[in-house]
Amino acid sequence: MSSWVQIAPGVKRRVAVDGEKLMVVEVRFEAGASVPTHSHIHEQATHVIEGQLRFRRAESPDVILEPGQTMHIPSNVVHSAEAVSACTVIDIFSPPREDFRAKT
Amino acid sequence: MSSWVQIAPGVKRRVAVDGEKLMVVEVRFEAGASVPTHSHIHEQATHVIEGQLRFRRAESPDVILEPGQTMHIPSNVVHSAEAVSACTVIDIFSPPREDFRAKT
Repeated sequence: MSSWVQIAPGVKRRVAVDGEKLMVVEVRFEAGASVPTHSHIHEQATHVIEGQLRFRRAESPDVILEPGQTMHIPSNVVHSAEAVSACTVIDIFSPPREDFRAKT
Repeated sequence: MSSWVQIAPGVKRRVAVDGEKLMVVEVRFEAGASVPTHSHIHEQATHVIEGQLRFRRAESPDVILEPGQTMHIPSNVVHSAEAVSACTVIDIFSPPREDFRAKT
Protein backbone atom coordinates (compact mmCIF):
# COMPACT_ATOMS: atom_id res chain seq x y z
CA MET A 1 0.00 0.00 0.00
CA SER A 2 1.50 3.36 -0.98
CA SER A 3 1.40 6.47 1.21
CA TRP A 4 -1.51 8.90 1.02
CA VAL A 5 -1.15 11.65 -1.58
CA GLN A 6 -3.27 14.80 -1.45
CA ILE A 7 -4.73 15.28 -4.93
CA ALA A 8 -7.18 18.16 -4.39
CA PRO A 9 -8.46 20.06 -1.35
CA GLY A 10 -10.13 17.44 0.88
CA VAL A 11 -9.25 14.56 -1.46
CA LYS A 12 -6.44 12.03 -0.98
CA ARG A 13 -5.48 8.74 -2.59
CA ARG A 14 -3.25 5.76 -1.98
CA VAL A 15 -2.40 2.91 -4.33
CA ALA A 16 -3.53 -0.49 -3.03
CA VAL A 17 -2.49 -2.64 -6.01
CA ASP A 18 -0.10 -1.66 -8.76
CA GLY A 19 -0.24 -4.54 -11.19
CA GLU A 20 0.75 -5.32 -14.73
CA LYS A 21 -2.63 -4.61 -16.32
CA LEU A 22 -4.64 -3.12 -13.45
CA MET A 23 -4.28 -0.63 -10.62
CA VAL A 24 -6.53 -0.31 -7.54
CA VAL A 25 -6.54 3.03 -5.72
CA GLU A 26 -8.34 4.00 -2.51
CA VAL A 27 -9.66 7.59 -2.58
CA ARG A 28 -11.10 9.48 0.38
CA PHE A 29 -13.15 12.65 0.04
CA GLU A 30 -14.18 15.06 2.76
CA ALA A 31 -17.81 16.19 2.44
CA GLY A 32 -18.11 18.73 -0.38
CA ALA A 33 -14.65 18.01 -1.80
CA SER A 34 -14.34 17.39 -5.52
CA VAL A 35 -12.11 16.23 -8.33
CA PRO A 36 -12.33 18.62 -11.27
CA THR A 37 -13.25 17.63 -14.79
CA HIS A 38 -10.56 15.55 -16.47
CA SER A 39 -10.00 12.60 -18.76
CA HIS A 40 -7.31 9.97 -19.40
CA ILE A 41 -6.67 7.11 -21.75
CA HIS A 42 -6.99 4.63 -18.85
CA GLU A 43 -10.33 2.84 -18.56
CA GLN A 44 -11.73 3.38 -15.05
CA ALA A 45 -14.32 1.95 -12.67
CA THR A 46 -15.24 3.69 -9.40
CA HIS A 47 -16.84 1.65 -6.61
CA VAL A 48 -18.29 3.47 -3.60
CA ILE A 49 -17.46 1.92 -0.23
CA GLU A 50 -18.91 4.57 2.07
CA GLY A 51 -20.75 7.88 1.64
CA GLN A 52 -22.32 9.43 -1.43
CA LEU A 53 -20.48 10.64 -4.52
CA ARG A 54 -22.01 12.79 -7.25
CA PHE A 55 -20.50 11.65 -10.53
CA ARG A 56 -20.53 13.46 -13.87
CA ARG A 57 -19.58 11.94 -17.19
CA ALA A 58 -19.66 13.86 -20.46
CA GLU A 59 -23.05 13.56 -22.17
CA SER A 60 -24.58 11.59 -19.29
CA PRO A 61 -26.91 12.82 -16.54
CA ASP A 62 -25.40 13.34 -13.08
CA VAL A 63 -25.58 10.27 -10.87
CA ILE A 64 -25.30 10.06 -7.10
CA LEU A 65 -23.45 6.84 -6.28
CA GLU A 66 -24.27 5.06 -3.03
CA PRO A 67 -22.22 2.40 -1.22
CA GLY A 68 -22.06 -0.77 -3.31
CA GLN A 69 -22.58 1.04 -6.61
CA THR A 70 -20.01 1.10 -9.40
CA MET A 71 -19.54 3.57 -12.26
CA HIS A 72 -17.75 2.73 -15.52
CA ILE A 73 -15.68 5.42 -17.26
CA PRO A 74 -14.47 4.29 -20.67
CA SER A 75 -11.13 5.49 -21.99
CA ASN A 76 -10.96 9.25 -22.68
CA VAL A 77 -14.44 10.05 -21.32
CA VAL A 78 -14.42 13.41 -19.52
CA HIS A 79 -15.61 13.10 -15.91
CA SER A 80 -15.65 14.74 -12.48
CA ALA A 81 -16.81 13.82 -8.98
CA GLU A 82 -18.03 15.66 -5.89
CA ALA A 83 -18.58 14.19 -2.43
CA VAL A 84 -22.14 14.72 -1.23
CA SER A 85 -20.96 13.39 2.14
CA ALA A 86 -17.56 12.23 3.36
CA CYS A 87 -16.84 9.18 1.28
CA THR A 88 -14.39 6.40 0.50
CA VAL A 89 -14.21 4.87 -2.96
CA ILE A 90 -11.95 2.57 -4.86
CA ASP A 91 -10.85 3.59 -8.32
CA ILE A 92 -9.76 0.85 -10.68
CA PHE A 93 -7.69 1.58 -13.78
CA SER A 94 -6.49 -0.40 -16.76
CA PRO A 95 -3.79 0.09 -17.79
CA PRO A 96 -2.22 1.19 -14.46
CA ARG A 97 -1.77 4.95 -13.98
CA GLU A 98 1.97 5.39 -14.31
CA ASP A 99 1.50 8.99 -13.17
CA PHE A 100 0.27 7.65 -9.78
CA ARG A 101 3.53 5.82 -9.11
CA ALA A 102 5.85 7.36 -6.53
CA LYS A 103 8.75 9.18 -8.12
CA THR A 104 12.01 7.55 -7.10
CA MET B 1 -25.46 -5.02 -13.25
CA SER B 2 -25.89 -8.67 -14.25
CA SER B 3 -28.03 -11.16 -12.34
CA TRP B 4 -26.60 -13.20 -9.48
CA VAL B 5 -24.97 -16.47 -10.49
CA GLN B 6 -24.30 -19.23 -7.97
CA ILE B 7 -20.68 -20.32 -8.42
CA ALA B 8 -20.16 -22.66 -5.47
CA PRO B 9 -22.21 -23.67 -2.42
CA GLY B 10 -22.83 -20.43 -0.50
CA VAL B 11 -21.00 -18.27 -3.05
CA LYS B 12 -22.62 -16.06 -5.71
CA ARG B 13 -21.39 -13.35 -8.07
CA ARG B 14 -22.75 -10.61 -10.27
CA VAL B 15 -20.92 -8.50 -12.81
CA ALA B 16 -20.97 -4.78 -11.98
CA VAL B 17 -18.80 -3.48 -14.84
CA ASP B 18 -17.94 -5.35 -18.01
CA GLY B 19 -15.51 -3.08 -19.81
CA GLU B 20 -13.00 -3.25 -22.60
CA LYS B 21 -9.93 -3.87 -20.44
CA LEU B 22 -11.41 -4.42 -16.97
CA MET B 23 -14.24 -6.25 -15.26
CA VAL B 24 -15.62 -5.60 -11.76
CA VAL B 25 -17.53 -8.42 -10.08
CA GLU B 26 -19.33 -8.42 -6.72
CA VAL B 27 -19.00 -11.73 -4.85
CA ARG B 28 -20.91 -12.72 -1.72
CA PHE B 29 -19.90 -15.62 0.53
CA GLU B 30 -21.89 -17.22 3.30
CA ALA B 31 -19.79 -17.94 6.41
CA GLY B 32 -17.59 -20.97 5.77
CA ALA B 33 -18.22 -21.01 2.02
CA SER B 34 -15.22 -21.30 -0.27
CA VAL B 35 -13.95 -21.08 -3.81
CA PRO B 36 -11.68 -24.02 -4.60
CA THR B 37 -8.13 -23.71 -5.86
CA HIS B 38 -7.97 -22.42 -9.41
CA SER B 39 -6.01 -20.15 -11.72
CA HIS B 40 -6.62 -18.07 -14.85
CA ILE B 41 -4.66 -15.92 -17.22
CA HIS B 42 -6.59 -12.85 -16.04
CA GLU B 43 -4.80 -10.64 -13.52
CA GLN B 44 -7.02 -10.19 -10.45
CA ALA B 45 -7.41 -7.96 -7.40
CA THR B 46 -9.83 -8.81 -4.57
CA HIS B 47 -11.02 -6.01 -2.27
CA VAL B 48 -12.96 -6.92 0.86
CA ILE B 49 -16.02 -4.77 1.55
CA GLU B 50 -17.47 -6.63 4.53
CA GLY B 51 -16.53 -9.72 6.57
CA GLN B 52 -13.29 -11.70 6.66
CA LEU B 53 -11.88 -13.79 3.83
CA ARG B 54 -9.03 -16.28 4.18
CA PHE B 55 -7.01 -16.10 1.00
CA ARG B 56 -4.43 -18.60 -0.27
CA ARG B 57 -2.01 -17.98 -3.10
CA ALA B 58 0.52 -20.54 -4.27
CA GLU B 59 3.80 -20.23 -2.41
CA SER B 60 2.48 -17.50 -0.10
CA PRO B 61 1.32 -17.79 3.52
CA ASP B 62 -2.43 -17.69 4.15
CA VAL B 63 -3.80 -14.22 4.73
CA ILE B 64 -7.06 -13.20 6.38
CA LEU B 65 -8.33 -10.14 4.55
CA GLU B 66 -10.37 -7.59 6.49
CA PRO B 67 -12.67 -4.88 5.11
CA GLY B 68 -10.64 -2.29 3.21
CA GLN B 69 -7.83 -4.72 2.35
CA THR B 70 -6.92 -5.71 -1.19
CA MET B 71 -5.11 -8.80 -2.49
CA HIS B 72 -3.26 -8.94 -5.83
CA ILE B 73 -3.28 -12.17 -7.82
CA PRO B 74 -0.97 -12.00 -10.83
CA SER B 75 -1.84 -13.86 -14.01
CA ASN B 76 -1.82 -17.67 -13.66
CA VAL B 77 -1.15 -17.71 -9.90
CA VAL B 78 -3.07 -20.56 -8.25
CA HIS B 79 -5.38 -19.31 -5.48
CA SER B 80 -8.40 -20.12 -3.33
CA ALA B 81 -10.57 -18.31 -0.78
CA GLU B 82 -12.70 -19.24 2.22
CA ALA B 83 -15.09 -16.99 4.11
CA VAL B 84 -14.21 -16.80 7.80
CA SER B 85 -17.49 -14.90 8.25
CA ALA B 86 -20.21 -13.92 5.78
CA CYS B 87 -18.50 -11.53 3.43
CA THR B 88 -18.83 -9.32 0.40
CA VAL B 89 -15.87 -8.63 -1.86
CA ILE B 90 -15.24 -7.11 -5.23
CA ASP B 91 -13.11 -9.00 -7.68
CA ILE B 92 -11.39 -7.02 -10.41
CA PHE B 93 -10.04 -8.66 -13.55
CA SER B 94 -7.97 -7.58 -16.52
CA PRO B 95 -8.66 -8.60 -19.18
CA PRO B 96 -12.40 -9.12 -18.53
CA ARG B 97 -13.51 -12.69 -17.82
CA GLU B 98 -15.32 -13.66 -21.00
CA ASP B 99 -16.46 -16.81 -19.21
CA PHE B 100 -18.44 -14.62 -16.76
CA ARG B 101 -20.54 -13.09 -19.52
CA ALA B 102 -24.11 -14.26 -19.78
CA LYS B 103 -24.61 -16.73 -22.60
CA THR B 104 -27.10 -15.35 -25.12
